[in-house]
Amino acid sequence: MQAAPIRELINRLPSSQIRDVSEIGLGMPGLIPLWFGESDEPTPDFIKQAAIDSLGRNETFYVSNNGVPPLREEIVRYMRRIYDIPMEVDRITVTASGMHAIILTMQALVDPGDNVVVVGPVWPNLRETVHIMGGEARDLYLTEEHGRWQLDVQALCDLCDDRTKAIFVNSPGNPTGWMMKAEEQKEILEFCRKRGIWILCDDVYARIVYDRHHAPSFIEIAEPDDLVIAINSFSKSWSMTGWRLGWITAPAALEEILAKLNEFNIAAPTTFVQHAGVVALRDGDPYVEDLVQRLHRRRDLVCQRLSSFRRVRLAVPDAAFYAFVAVEGVENSYDFAVEILKKTKVGLAPGSAFGPSGEGYLRLCFASSDDSLRTALDRMEPILDAG
Amino acid sequence: MQAAPIRELINRLPSSQIRDVSEIGLGMPGLIPLWFGESDEPTPDFIKQAAIDSLGRNETFYVSNNGVPPLREEIVRYMRRIYDIPMEVDRITVTASGMHAIILTMQALVDPGDNVVVVGPVWPNLRETVHIMGGEARDLYLTEEHGRWQLDVQALCDLCDDRTKAIFVNSPGNPTGWMMKAEEQKEILEFCRKRGIWILCDDVYARIVYDRHHAPSFIEIAEPDDLVIAINSFSKSWSMTGWRLGWITAPAALEEILAKLNEFNIAAPTTFVQHAGVVALRDGDPYVEDLVQRLHRRRDLVCQRLSSFRRVRLAVPDAAFYAFVAVEGVENSYDFAVEILKKTKVGLAPGSAFGPSGEGYLRLCFASSDDSLRTALDRMEPILDAG
Repeated sequence: MQAAPIRELINRLPSSQIRDVSEIGLGMPGLIPLWFGESDEPTPDFIKQAAIDSLGRNETFYVSNNGVPPLREEIVRYMRRIYDIPMEVDRITVTASGMHAIILTMQALVDPGDNVVVVGPVWPNLRETVHIMGGEARDLYLTEEHGRWQLDVQALCDLCDDRTKAIFVNSPGNPTGWMMKAEEQKEILEFCRKRGIWILCDDVYARIVYDRHHAPSFIEIAEPDDLVIAINSFSKSWSMTGWRLGWITAPAALEEILAKLNEFNIAAPTTFVQHAGVVALRDGDPYVEDLVQRLHRRRDLVCQRLSSFRRVRLAVPDAAFYAFVAVEGVENSYDFAVEILKKTKVGLAPGSAFGPSGEGYLRLCFASSDDSLRTALDRMEPILDAG
Repeated sequence: MQAAPIRELINRLPSSQIRDVSEIGLGMPGLIPLWFGESDEPTPDFIKQAAIDSLGRNETFYVSNNGVPPLREEIVRYMRRIYDIPMEVDRITVTASGMHAIILTMQALVDPGDNVVVVGPVWPNLRETVHIMGGEARDLYLTEEHGRWQLDVQALCDLCDDRTKAIFVNSPGNPTGWMMKAEEQKEILEFCRKRGIWILCDDVYARIVYDRHHAPSFIEIAEPDDLVIAINSFSKSWSMTGWRLGWITAPAALEEILAKLNEFNIAAPTTFVQHAGVVALRDGDPYVEDLVQRLHRRRDLVCQRLSSFRRVRLAVPDAAFYAFVAVEGVENSYDFAVEILKKTKVGLAPGSAFGPSGEGYLRLCFASSDDSLRTALDRMEPILDAG
């Protein structure tokens, strides 16, 4: 057949190494999959019921591009409650997931030749949204020192130039669980104010934290018209990965622009999914708190065992639901993840999926049952605790 | 506040004139809204029940980027049944609406400076997806002759140059109801084969036709590896506008690329919405046939009345659910739609929303109850039948 004439940039998009490993394990009996960033719990019943109720009310029609008013209003209440900040509806746009919020944002900001500076190692997809728009993703990597992930704020600022449209920060971070300090946020905000650079803060793990109520967000320290776009998602805190619902908090000046981008991308997220989102935010705090308690216990369980293994080095995560571990002697984390999969039927994500600085690491998602986690650790012990 | 540094291309995106008119009518008591492209019927119960059943099975997790296997397989069966052609699952990608299928396609094909040739007057959003990617939309307008919309195939081909990546055809067309002939499709396919140009055929009204079973599609005459991308949607034929579900049929060579683009845009459409889509296709033929019968009656009702009005000229549509009427003496269709709205509380879409060749026209969506349509026509008669 003739070669399909596709954009060279698109032909070059890498496939996800996490998906690649997981496909090797597809249908493997006895598999314990800890590779994806999702809890093994289905969505709680009260949220599913809210979707069913919405269908019963025939909420099956087109709705406003920025989202249905009850959800935008509930998000405003949520943001005020969690962050104790002023917030109005004109700053909120509902999106079909955090991922979708990111691609809309890149469509708004990135012309070919522009760049976005990214704090890594990080979830790889965000970098590809920059590439799709013809931009460059520039990486500033955290360093692991004395069991903590550290950010060099000056080095981050030094990476910015005249074509830098945004700094992207995912804190709490996937895969590291690193959490940015409020003082670091203030420094970066000051720098970006001077330079007219956007801050894109991916706050999807804001509630999955183990030593406080929520992670510090740029949205707490920014003025309403600062160049800050905060990205949020229902996926992690409310166990709604398959629902595809998220939101953007932006300066009110972007309300119309984001409405148009939603219109020209998906019109709006699924109507009755939005109405279920209202109930998730309104009634979901007890669920989120219970989930975080379970995850806290699992973090401790997993990190204690992993730390005891001779080949493993680990910075205990302050937040999110991943253990990101360096394994002695591993030069190719993809091959090693495949080896672990084949020998133990435990599915892990290779660190190289998160950029070159992730090489030598493996990511384990501990949002699974205690039993699954114990069995997985037992199975991996002979490999990871080898002398 | 400081000006938000947004891409100039994005700042220039027009707002939808249809949305603009509809906002004037928001909350108007007694309003009959015929401006949007959707039926006033809620989604049928058997499809809503399928979503509820899927939620009951806890289908709330992430799924494969190309769509859940049962839906891809059901789409294959549907395409074979409707078009009587060979079809395999590797050609199908599920998307979060027809709109979403179009933006993914433009991401795959359009570099800055490329162009897409578009048959108009046409639904305006598709043109904006080209602009978002930095491309140019070139319009070839149908002409209305002797009560029929006519395409000049040679003129269409003449608009293509070395930077033309695709020809976009929406047939049956919104707003005209024009249906492309199979012979015209063959000519265009031959031309595009020679030139290596993609054909993007927007087939979302393929089933809403009044003189045959389905509208002719490029997909029927193309070889599996021809450069043809067919776009489809659950919105119109199954009354699922608020669900956001559609699909792409493409050469198998694009399977991996479309998976990546879904991954980097939305991961995949809502999981239990996809499972409801299986049931819509499997059990939905009687619903679609009944819907088309109702629409057929309404087309005749609306077109007979409109044709009798002295100021109105109308090509009776072969397909889709719009009457696209020229009104004598109207130079600004937006102002006239506002006038009609204010004087009669009937909501119509201004023709200028569909490109310059739509100026002087109004679009009326007749997917409403007979009573609503009769009342709307009664109210408009004094204006449209003025001597």
